[in-house]
Amino acid sequence: MNDVSIDAARLWASHMEMARIGATPGGGVGRLALSDEDKAARDLFVRWCADAGCQVRVDRIGNIFARRPGTDETLAPVMTGSHLDTQPLGGRFDGIYGVLAGLEVVRALNDVGLATRRPIEVVVWTDEEGARFRAGTAGSGVFAGLSDLEETLALRDPDGRSIGDELARIGYAGDAPVGGFPVAAYFEAHIEQGPILEAEGKTVGAVMGAQGHRCFLITVEGEEGHAGTLPMERRRDALLGAARMIDALNRVAYRFEPHPVVTVGSLHVRPNSPNTVPGGATFTIDSRHPDDAILDAVEGAMRAACAAVAEEMGLGLTVAPTAHRVPVVFDEGCVESVRRAAAALGIPWRDIYSGAGHDACNMAHVAPTGMIFVPCERGISHNERENAKPEDLAAGCAVLLRVLVERADDAAT
Amino acid sequence: MNDVSIDAARLWASHMEMARIGATPGGGVGRLALSDEDKAARDLFVRWCADAGCQVRVDRIGNIFARRPGTDETLAPVMTGSHLDTQPLGGRFDGIYGVLAGLEVVRALNDVGLATRRPIEVVVWTDEEGARFRAGTAGSGVFAGLSDLEETLALRDPDGRSIGDELARIGYAGDAPVGGFPVAAYFEAHIEQGPILEAEGKTVGAVMGAQGHRCFLITVEGEEGHAGTLPMERRRDALLGAARMIDALNRVAYRFEPHPVVTVGSLHVRPNSPNTVPGGATFTIDSRHPDDAILDAVEGAMRAACAAVAEEMGLGLTVAPTAHRVPVVFDEGCVESVRRAAAALGIPWRDIYSGAGHDACNMAHVAPTGMIFVPCERGISHNERENAKPEDLAAGCAVLLRVLVERADDAAT
Repeated sequence: MNDVSIDAARLWASHMEMARIGATPGGGVGRLALSDEDKAARDLFVRWCADAGCQVRVDRIGNIFARRPGTDETLAPVMTGSHLDTQPLGGRFDGIYGVLAGLEVVRALNDVGLATRRPIEVVVWTDEEGARFRAGTAGSGVFAGLSDLEETLALRDPDGRSIGDELARIGYAGDAPVGGFPVAAYFEAHIEQGPILEAEGKTVGAVMGAQGHRCFLITVEGEEGHAGTLPMERRRDALLGAARMIDALNRVAYRFEPHPVVTVGSLHVRPNSPNTVPGGATFTIDSRHPDDAILDAVEGAMRAACAAVAEEMGLGLTVAPTAHRVPVVFDEGCVESVRRAAAALGIPWRDIYSGAGHDACNMAHVAPTGMIFVPCERGISHNERENAKPEDLAAGCAVLLRVLVERADDAAT
Repeated sequence: MNDVSIDAARLWASHMEMARIGATPGGGVGRLALSDEDKAARDLFVRWCADAGCQVRVDRIGNIFARRPGTDETLAPVMTGSHLDTQPLGGRFDGIYGVLAGLEVVRALNDVGLATRRPIEVVVWTDEEGARFRAGTAGSGVFAGLSDLEETLALRDPDGRSIGDELARIGYAGDAPVGGFPVAAYFEAHIEQGPILEAEGKTVGAVMGAQGHRCFLITVEGEEGHAGTLPMERRRDALLGAARMIDALNRVAYRFEPHPVVTVGSLHVRPNSPNTVPGGATFTIDSRHPDDAILDAVEGAMRAACAAVAEEMGLGLTVAPTAHRVPVVFDEGCVESVRRAAAALGIPWRDIYSGAGHDACNMAHVAPTGMIFVPCERGISHNERENAKPEDLAAGCAVLLRVLVERADDAAT
């Protein structure tokens, strides 16, 4: 274990070569799921895996599994991976890092001829981003039994093309069944997509789980009026009410420790005319926290805050839930493995929660799961400017190597 | 003077007949300036005036003057009127009332054969609303020398048709010079377009002037971030900043007596995505008050309030003035005439300021000017639901009759 080590330069070079597929003028990547660019990226990955001696199979939802055999092929594999698709104007690391870090582990083991008892599988999940077919984590969702295969294959993009048709078109409609076999453990390496590690000078985040997530659509009803003739005291201004609610919702977040994140990201005003007192306003709330009980309390406080403003101002109010995802808690053993590996390698680390959703959140339903976060520049992601340092990617990959080998040599489960 | 009286039923019937031209399914009127509907309304007015024995002339900007001769035709006329064009989904009374009240005065004088020393002219001003050619009070603006004739004729609608072309098309490109003759006094009857008279049970408003009006475009610059991963403490949320400014701007209004009206009617958020912390927000401020010194102080307080929020939250802020109209003060003698007439007729009245702009605001630059407001239902205007009571219209018209005859028999000026 101490005589195997990953090749930081090779890992970086693989990222840069992969980033040429769908490269955007702004320095990012545009590689929508099941596009020609996604096919090219998959083809490159498959070629690299074949070169590394892996057996490659593709399942019916297009997930690719590259298997480095173990010394005991009767044992369940340990698995690692992520996705190769990106947002329309995405970056070079979101998802790709998890795939290429897994490949680098295989290459590093090959470099020294180290065999593991369990097989190690590097997986590319289909359509994690959801930018094209609007589902998100589609391949891992079917694998984990959380989504129906046929329904997922039938999802269509805005041009009417289905996932099933596009998989067939690009040659990735595989014949392997989706899931249904035991996975000893799943680890996913990923850029943080947030600013915490960078700000605190930590190189690795031991991800304890993913935040619960509740979204709401708020509608405020007032009454339109002439901006020049309606006296202040007689107004029922829906935008003013919405503004006071937005301020109050922000203050709700600070009443809980650790703070949930509460975001009003989208607001529409009716009629949105400079010389008309607004008659209506509609806005979204996005609230997230790792603890569902706190999310319950936050929701209650948010509803009360909006109701108090509406009541005081004589405004109509409706609060419609639009999304409700419970927190995901990763396997304590897997999280501890990540912590121990980082500590053993002398890499500064901290516990962290994922603010975004990942394929690992699906995998946590069917296998002991952990994630390894590395910093990204200024926390920027889903953006062409997304950036990460070669040495941070290498550090996370070294941790991944260590936890995968540890699990692959553990025949207990 | 005491043996002449207006005919409330005739006045109402004229409104209802006029409202058939451009009638909308929702019970309002759509009669854009210089449209076929505007032509039909003008034709009907001209026919009624000819039937009433008036001499009709049209000037080069399409203003129509219907003159009831005086006993001394060397004296300057007293003038009354308003406009026949409406908003796309406008009402039956805004503007039309001022024209038909003037016509009713002429008819009432004819009924009893009462001659006045000065001529009385009923005027229809071209394009008061500005809904089509985006100028507003176009005809009275040129008449009062505030706008250039040729520039105004060259204004184009979104389809590229100019005021000049459209005047020629509908047959109202007259050959009379625009303005340039003395007007002894100008009175305009109008619905209030606000809720004050109705709320206080007053039938007539003696309009003392029109509020000054200052508008601004506010741009707030923050930084976009991921709603799930960017901790609250690290956010520079432009919408949250805008919300706090909107609240603060509203509170500014209450610091002055009598309150100015301060309205944030329009707001746009960037990128306006539910799961992205807003990076930018742009909103409008519309502020109005009859006293320019108070408007100065309000502007200072509003700028300070926005700057304080931006400073505290680390946000960028730009404040761009987009309109600046000084208050209009009507002639004290004309205002007093309206008060006296209402009192003499036993009509409940109060002093009031106009929140909206009117042709009378232009006329105040070239003639002693006053306005007579009557209530409209719930203050609603620029709306198909705009409504007024026949008896209120009649009361305002009776006041108009009285002040016009008083001025027309006063040869002093």
